[in-house]
Amino acid sequence: MDVVFVLYDQMTALDIVGPYETLAGHHDVQPLFAAAQVGPVRCDNGLTLHADVGFDDLSTADVLVVPGSSRWLRALDDEQLIAWLAAISPTATWTAAVCTGSTLLAKAGLLTGRPATTHWAVRDALAAHGADVRTERVVVDGDVITAAGVSAGIDMALTLAAILWDEWTAQAIQLALEYDPRPPFDSGSVDKAPADIVAALRNAFTSG
Amino acid sequence: MDVVFVLYDQMTALDIVGPYETLAGHHDVQPLFAAAQVGPVRCDNGLTLHADVGFDDLSTADVLVVPGSSRWLRALDDEQLIAWLAAISPTATWTAAVCTGSTLLAKAGLLTGRPATTHWAVRDALAAHGADVRTERVVVDGDVITAAGVSAGIDMALTLAAILWDEWTAQAIQLALEYDPRPPFDSGSVDKAPADIVAALRNAFTSG
Repeated sequence: MDVVFVLYDQMTALDIVGPYETLAGHHDVQPLFAAAQVGPVRCDNGLTLHADVGFDDLSTADVLVVPGSSRWLRALDDEQLIAWLAAISPTATWTAAVCTGSTLLAKAGLLTGRPATTHWAVRDALAAHGADVRTERVVVDGDVITAAGVSAGIDMALTLAAILWDEWTAQAIQLALEYDPRPPFDSGSVDKAPADIVAALRNAFTSG
Repeated sequence: MDVVFVLYDQMTALDIVGPYETLAGHHDVQPLFAAAQVGPVRCDNGLTLHADVGFDDLSTADVLVVPGSSRWLRALDDEQLIAWLAAISPTATWTAAVCTGSTLLAKAGLLTGRPATTHWAVRDALAAHGADVRTERVVVDGDVITAAGVSAGIDMALTLAAILWDEWTAQAIQLALEYDPRPPFDSGSVDKAPADIVAALRNAFTSG
């Protein structure tokens, strides 16, 4: 199956690399890295990924994976990206979004009235674009699966692996990635982090 | 500070992108992606990353981050990579390895008699190269920090962030990444996964 990983300028690399590492090792998967143009795509913390295909080269996907960005407001203004997502998502068996990627799907009209999650700091923006915002880490609704911020893409992709294949396969992938998380702190959700950290980050993210 | 992320052919992308996303957003960090040559580096599941600097362009690092590979036996035969690691690691305040990256450090003579961890399936190989192998997810020994398989690089980098800066900063990074993991299965360690999955993967990894 063609799993299309969407790339765009100033995206967050881990949003796509988490699901990629979880899904692309399976022998069924043909991973495709798609951007507006073939070539380098600069991520928001400085890493450069390479797009192998241009948006115009692809008219269908089996699975579509859309990352977020710390510059998510800028991404929402990328009309070419939004239009392409609106066109290709209906061809896909599954459309997946990580972090603020769900705001792109919502702007493309794909989440209107539908349950979806996103990075904790942009829930209001996702709601403003018509989604029924949930706070779960992974939300499945029909043919759309959404994840909370950045690292949640790994949990999402393991959930999707069990749907695409089976639980044995998803568990084998989890073990291959040695995904037995042991965060040294318990500050990973807005409900647990110290209030001053939440406030500082909310300000930073809201300005996009 | 210069944080040098090492890239090489057939590496595992998430091994480097986890620590990169954790560390490179900090204003103190200048991320540098280094490979044998400037240009594209193909990862083991098909993603291409871009190296901005060549090994010969760098003679020092503040922090060095070394990823692993599912083709780890092949990587151990890369004499240029091993020699460069042996030369640059002593200049770094911190040398970090994720997954089978520790076997590269060990072959470079950097872990002889020192406690270190690695991907669960290659512990014997790490021991054979002289390290004092531990099974913890993250091991700190002097100026070297090692992580277990693939996803453990995120836990390692949060640990390192608290050392490089402070716990408040590490907790803020954790919240920015929304790293509040909820794996849908409990199959992420060799002690928890079904025995048939462990056996199947051990065979696959041991052949490197």
